[in-house]
Amino acid sequence: MKFLHLSDLHFGKLLHGYDLTEEQRKCIQDIIEVIKKEQPDAVVVAGDIYDRSMPSGNAMTLLEELLLGIDGAAPQGKPVETMIIAGNHDSAQRLQYGSSFLRRHHIHIAVLPPQGDGEKLQKLVLTDKYGEVNFYLLPFVKPGMVRHRVPEGTVLTTEDAVRYLLEQEEIDYSQRNVLVSHQFYVNGGRQPVTCDSEAPRLTVGGLDEVNATVVERFDYAALGHIHSPQEIGSPNIRYCGTMYPYSVSEEGQEKSVTVVELGEKGNLELRFIPFSPERTVRSIRGTLKEVAEAAQKNGDAPCQDYVKVILTDEETVDSPKDYLERYYDYILEVTIDNSRTRQILEENTADIRELTPLEAFEGFFCEVTGHPMNEGEKKAFQEILGELED
Amino acid sequence: MKFLHLSDLHFGKLLHGYDLTEEQRKCIQDIIEVIKKEQPDAVVVAGDIYDRSMPSGNAMTLLEELLLGIDGAAPQGKPVETMIIAGNHDSAQRLQYGSSFLRRHHIHIAVLPPQGDGEKLQKLVLTDKYGEVNFYLLPFVKPGMVRHRVPEGTVLTTEDAVRYLLEQEEIDYSQRNVLVSHQFYVNGGRQPVTCDSEAPRLTVGGLDEVNATVVERFDYAALGHIHSPQEIGSPNIRYCGTMYPYSVSEEGQEKSVTVVELGEKGNLELRFIPFSPERTVRSIRGTLKEVAEAAQKNGDAPCQDYVKVILTDEETVDSPKDYLERYYDYILEVTIDNSRTRQILEENTADIRELTPLEAFEGFFCEVTGHPMNEGEKKAFQEILGELED
Repeated sequence: MKFLHLSDLHFGKLLHGYDLTEEQRKCIQDIIEVIKKEQPDAVVVAGDIYDRSMPSGNAMTLLEELLLGIDGAAPQGKPVETMIIAGNHDSAQRLQYGSSFLRRHHIHIAVLPPQGDGEKLQKLVLTDKYGEVNFYLLPFVKPGMVRHRVPEGTVLTTEDAVRYLLEQEEIDYSQRNVLVSHQFYVNGGRQPVTCDSEAPRLTVGGLDEVNATVVERFDYAALGHIHSPQEIGSPNIRYCGTMYPYSVSEEGQEKSVTVVELGEKGNLELRFIPFSPERTVRSIRGTLKEVAEAAQKNGDAPCQDYVKVILTDEETVDSPKDYLERYYDYILEVTIDNSRTRQILEENTADIRELTPLEAFEGFFCEVTGHPMNEGEKKAFQEILGELED
Repeated sequence: MKFLHLSDLHFGKLLHGYDLTEEQRKCIQDIIEVIKKEQPDAVVVAGDIYDRSMPSGNAMTLLEELLLGIDGAAPQGKPVETMIIAGNHDSAQRLQYGSSFLRRHHIHIAVLPPQGDGEKLQKLVLTDKYGEVNFYLLPFVKPGMVRHRVPEGTVLTTEDAVRYLLEQEEIDYSQRNVLVSHQFYVNGGRQPVTCDSEAPRLTVGGLDEVNATVVERFDYAALGHIHSPQEIGSPNIRYCGTMYPYSVSEEGQEKSVTVVELGEKGNLELRFIPFSPERTVRSIRGTLKEVAEAAQKNGDAPCQDYVKVILTDEETVDSPKDYLERYYDYILEVTIDNSRTRQILEENTADIRELTPLEAFEGFFCEVTGHPMNEGEKKAFQEILGELED
C-alpha cells in the first residue's frame, strides 16, 4: 500500500502581503508529477487546506486544480483515493462544500469529528495483496467538540478528546491502520520544532498538546499542523511539513512530499521527494552596502527570492527598503540589528522583568487605548487583581 | 422540453439580521417536490446563488443540498440538467469551485463571460422529440469584462456588452434557443418593478440597463436580478422572481417557480407553481395598542411572521420594540409615522430642494467627516464645480 502524505497546503496564504498563488500552483504541479511517477494508491492531506476559514477565490481554484490534477494523474482504471481532513485554519462547512459529489470521484473530505453517540470517524478501507488497510480521518478537534458526549463537569484536554474519539472506534490493531490527524502532537512533553508561520498558540499548561503515545499503535500517523517535517518519537508518527516555506523561520528546511509504503503488518518504508521552489524564502544579514552587493552577485537583474533583510549598520540609514528595492524585487521586511536597537531591547526587557502586575497592565492599557489609565481605572484593575489573588 | 426557471436564491441572506437558513431550506424542499412531480428535463438558476461574494458556510451547505436534492429527485436514468450562472452577488471563483467534477453530474456552472477571441458562452444542447434546444449561459456581465475585446476608446454600455457577446455566438434563430441571463432588462426604457432588496444601483443615465429587444429573438430568456416575478415586454422574456420575500417591499408578491414548456418552434407555455413560506414578511400599521392586538388575534402565542411595524401614535411611545416583542417574535424594524415625523420629513425635503450645489455638498461633507467644511475646502470644491460647469 503506497500513499503520499501531505499537509498544510495553506492555499491563499499571503507572505508579508505577497500573493503565493504561483508558488502554490508550482507545488501542485510537482505533486501531480510525483503521482504520475509513483502511482500511489492514495493521497492524504492532513489539514489546513486553506490558510483562512474564508478562503479566497484563488485558494478555492487551487484546491480544485489539485483535485483535478490527482484525478487526471491516476492511471486508467486505478483511481487514487484522496483523503482530506480539516485543520484549524479550515472552515468545516466551506471545505465540505461539494463533498457529496466529490466522494463519487474517490475524494473523501472529513471536516468535523463525530457528533453523536454511535457516529464514527470517516473511515476508508483499501486493499492490497497483504489485505486491508484502514484509513481513519480525524479532523482537527477541540475539547468543546466532544464535551457534550462525556459526563457534565469532566475537564477535557485536547488529548482527552483525541483519546475519547479513538476509543469509540474499536480499532483492531492486529490489522494495518493509518490515522490522518491535525493536532499538536508532542513526544512525552518534548515539543516539536515549530516555526513562526503556524497559528499563534496559547500553550499555557500544554492544554492543546497530545502525547504521541495516544496514536503510537497506528502503523502510520499522517500528521499535519507543524510546518517543519519531523517524526514525533518514532518514524511511524510523522509531520510531513509544508510544501513551501511560509515564514523566514522555515529557511533552509528541505520541503518534501512523504511517500509512505506499508508492506506486511509491521513493515513501514518512508521516502521524501523534495520540492524545488522557484523562489525561496530567506534572510540576509549585513550592512546596507553588503546586502546590496549580495544581490548583484547574481548579475544585474534584481534578486527574485523573498528576503528578510537584517541591517547591521551602526549609523542611521534612511529608507533602506526603498533603496534595496533596486536590488531585490520581493523584500518581506527590513529590520535593524545594531548596538542601538540591541540596547533598546535589553532596556525594555530589563524594565518588563521589574514591573508589578499593575505597572505591566498600565503599559499594555496605554498601548491599546492610546492614553494612560486614570485613577478610577487603576482602582478597578487593582480590585480585580485582588479578587484573583484571593 | 420542460424546465424550471429559478433565480436569486440569495443563500446566506440575512433579513434585518435574522438568519433565513430554515426558510431557504424549506424553499429547497419545495423545489425538490416540484421536480419529483414535474420531472423536468432541466433546471436553470439565473444568478445570485449566494447573497454575498464571501458565502457563509451555511450558504454553501444550502447550495450543496439543492444540487444533491435535484440529483436525487431525477428519475433513474433520466438526469435533470442543472444550469447555473453567476449573478452580481456571486464571486466567480468561489461559485466555480467544484464545477469540473459537478459537470460530470449534469451540473453546469458558468461564472464569467468569454474572455478571449474565439471563446464562446457555455452552451448546453438538449434534445426532445421536436429536435434540439440550445441553452446559452450568460453570467452577469459588466462593460469592463468586454472592453478589452473592442477597439480602444469605444464606450460600452452594459447593453453593448450583452449585444456584443450574443453576436459572437452566431445563433441560429430558426432553432429553439434559451438564454439564461442576470442583467437589468428594461422594456423600451420602461423599468421593471423593483424592490428594496435588490442590490443598490446607480442607474445614472441607465448605463446598466439592457433593452429587452436585444434578447427578444430567444424562444425564452430566463432572467434573474429582479425579485418581483414579471415579464419584460412579452411572455418569453421573464424574471421568475425570488423564492422568498427578501424585503418588506416584496410583501404580498406571490413567489413561485416558473415551469417553462417549449413545444415546437414558436410554442411556449408557462405555469407558475407558488411557494408557500411558513413565515411571511409583512408590514403592520397602527397605534401601539392596535399593533399589539393584531398579534393577539392569532391566539396567545407570539406572532411568528417577520414584521415591519409602522406606529401611528401621536404621543411619544417609549421603547416600542421592547414592548411589542411580547407579541411578535420577529420584528424587523419599528418606524413612527405621525404628524411630527411627517413634518420633519417635509421640512428636510423642502430644505434639500432649495440648496445650492455647495450647500448640498457641505451637508454631505459634514455628515461623512463629522465636521463642517473649512474655507480652504469650500474654495477647492467651488473650483472643481467651476471646472465641471465649464
